Amino acid sequence: MIAKRMVNLVEKNSVIREMFEEGKKLADIYGPENVYDFSLGNPSVPAPEQVKESIKKIVDTEDPLVIHGYMNNAGFEDVRDAISKSINKKYGTNFTQNNIIMTVGAASGLNIIFKSILNPDEEVLTFAPYFVEYNSYVEGYNGVLKIVSPNLETFEPNLKELEDKITPKTRALIINTPNNPTGVIYSEETIKKIAEILEKKQNEYNTQIFLVSDEPYRELAYDGIEVPYVTKYYKNTFVVYSFSKSLSLPGERIGYVVVPSEMDDSENIITAITIANRVIGSVNAPSLFQKVVMNCLDIAPDLETYDRNRNLLYNELKSYGFECIKPQGAFYLFVKSPIENEKEFCNIAKKYNILFVPGSSFACPGYVRIAYCVSTDMIKRSLPKFKLLAEETIR
Amino acid sequence: MIAKRMVNLVEKNSVIREMFEEGKKLADIYGPENVYDFSLGNPSVPAPEQVKESIKKIVDTEDPLVIHGYMNNAGFEDVRDAISKSINKKYGTNFTQNNIIMTVGAASGLNIIFKSILNPDEEVLTFAPYFVEYNSYVEGYNGVLKIVSPNLETFEPNLKELEDKITPKTRALIINTPNNPTGVIYSEETIKKIAEILEKKQNEYNTQIFLVSDEPYRELAYDGIEVPYVTKYYKNTFVVYSFSKSLSLPGERIGYVVVPSEMDDSENIITAITIANRVIGSVNAPSLFQKVVMNCLDIAPDLETYDRNRNLLYNELKSYGFECIKPQGAFYLFVKSPIENEKEFCNIAKKYNILFVPGSSFACPGYVRIAYCVSTDMIKRSLPKFKLLAEETIR
Repeated sequence: MIAKRMVNLVEKNSVIREMFEEGKKLADIYGPENVYDFSLGNPSVPAPEQVKESIKKIVDTEDPLVIHGYMNNAGFEDVRDAISKSINKKYGTNFTQNNIIMTVGAASGLNIIFKSILNPDEEVLTFAPYFVEYNSYVEGYNGVLKIVSPNLETFEPNLKELEDKITPKTRALIINTPNNPTGVIYSEETIKKIAEILEKKQNEYNTQIFLVSDEPYRELAYDGIEVPYVTKYYKNTFVVYSFSKSLSLPGERIGYVVVPSEMDDSENIITAITIANRVIGSVNAPSLFQKVVMNCLDIAPDLETYDRNRNLLYNELKSYGFECIKPQGAFYLFVKSPIENEKEFCNIAKKYNILFVPGSSFACPGYVRIAYCVSTDMIKRSLPKFKLLAEETIR
Repeated sequence: MIAKRMVNLVEKNSVIREMFEEGKKLADIYGPENVYDFSLGNPSVPAPEQVKESIKKIVDTEDPLVIHGYMNNAGFEDVRDAISKSINKKYGTNFTQNNIIMTVGAASGLNIIFKSILNPDEEVLTFAPYFVEYNSYVEGYNGVLKIVSPNLETFEPNLKELEDKITPKTRALIINTPNNPTGVIYSEETIKKIAEILEKKQNEYNTQIFLVSDEPYRELAYDGIEVPYVTKYYKNTFVVYSFSKSLSLPGERIGYVVVPSEMDDSENIITAITIANRVIGSVNAPSLFQKVVMNCLDIAPDLETYDRNRNLLYNELKSYGFECIKPQGAFYLFVKSPIENEKEFCNIAKKYNILFVPGSSFACPGYVRIAYCVSTDMIKRSLPKFKLLAEETIR
């Protein structure tokens, strides 16, 4: 009865989401305090107090017909203006409200971009490991996602292979930095090299290749590391942003897409993605939260908690014998599975009520993703279990 | 540079949305009090006070990690449970939370349904006049929208033509009652006849034909007219609901889809549309507003204002010589254009700073849609202009 395009999706469903449901089931059986669910990127730091205050102030003082009403499909003008100015101030860019399209989170932002730029069988490249939903976002618009294999030493992007895999059908490259699941942040040098390769191939094939920079973790960078603003290095760049992680609002579905005026055919592209926002059914980003985030643009996320978690879990797991690079950003550890088949390793972990996600869900088998956007207390309670897991699985 | 699928959309853009932008431009030139914008279904009645109180209470008393966090892609269990019970109480149905999937408004609900049920070249039928975005929603998943021509006397559905147009490729029929743009409400008898035709054709072709009941205007029914609950008459029915009109929250993007357990293959379909919710990028309906609408399920919309507008505008326009059926529900008048080409009529109206939408945008040329979800005061101020418009155009 269901459409053919959905059969595979229904059969596989999302491993990450299944874990989420499984975590809730285990919590019902063993009590939530005895389940160590590291499966989902659901922030553990609550939304800052200013979010609450802003919500209350807006509903108390502003016209309900405006704050809950329709607006331009690209979003409220004042919100887009404030966001463009905030980006300009932080990164020395030169955007106006016309370059900003408010979206139902980053996932929706990626969808409206691919709907607007992909013709059937055109290719989108990304670096493994990568967020598994990219497959659905690209295939949803009849594109083909092609994977650049991972560099297992450093998880830095494999640029030689990128260059080799670009064809005349390549329409876009997705990058995600700070990266889910590895925590790697691409340096300015790396971004410059990527830009160089794309420029070269655009000229070689006389095509346009878009760089789609998926940046929900932009603010989650530790040790003072800077995350370069990609539009400054390559004009055909879309920036896809979400407030899910920075303001701990993943359920509210609020983000934006940046389309620089320097992008080829930018005016038509802005119109297309604004229309796509409408016709995929989002219509517009949720109105009240557009106004809320406008009031919270200068709030830095609570990095301290995540950083403490990062150091605690990284140091402990290393001391038990697990292998892992130290993440520079985001809130995930990407740990080498001590057992070749990492799904088996995930199953053994479940015996200890520890849940994490197999790397095969990120096109990188042999590893697992451990989300440390959880309470520090839960990490502490989980450590003896991780130790037992190490003893059972590391030889 | 943009995808072929978007070229046409970019060229035509949405006439309704253009009107909306044009209205704002005219307001800048002539002052908002001298522009009579009847183009958009943006409720003029503010969200009820309980919405505000509910928002404040939730953010003051509930855990921000829950109210702004991820949940099951189908929505919060407590919200879906409350909605199912509310429907059961009102309509004598038998739903549980499993039958409810929270969505980013009705537009998103329609998208995830078509993504889940349509294979390439399968057909979806609807009755003209109809909400023009149905084309994009169906074509977005490679389906073909087929139109049953309007009955210009009554705007009741043309059932004979419906029956003739159902083929083995027919996958769904969209109905919209109370109807945008005519205000017609389908009676129980009409729904029964539609169900009979679909049953007969399902048996004849050994197919499943879904009835997709798009119901954003369900509560906007005047004179005590009842809107039948469609799942009671036909098991393969999706109900697509939105709180945009009933609670005046169109910008918040909050609605739901009902999938009855009696539907063929309902379990797979529920899974498919829940996954579709995720992969089209909505992920889930906005979290805070899920909780808000749960607290406002028993609030009736302010029908009085719309009813006053309906009677005022209907009676006056009739008295000036315009032809129109009296709407039973929603908040639109569908008025016969006194000039054969109704776009010309719209242009003449613009001279009087009156904006409304040509019927060709609803696959029904020769008519115009006048949205009376505006302030009664604006209607009153517009009447002398309508009178001049009548004098200029009615011969």
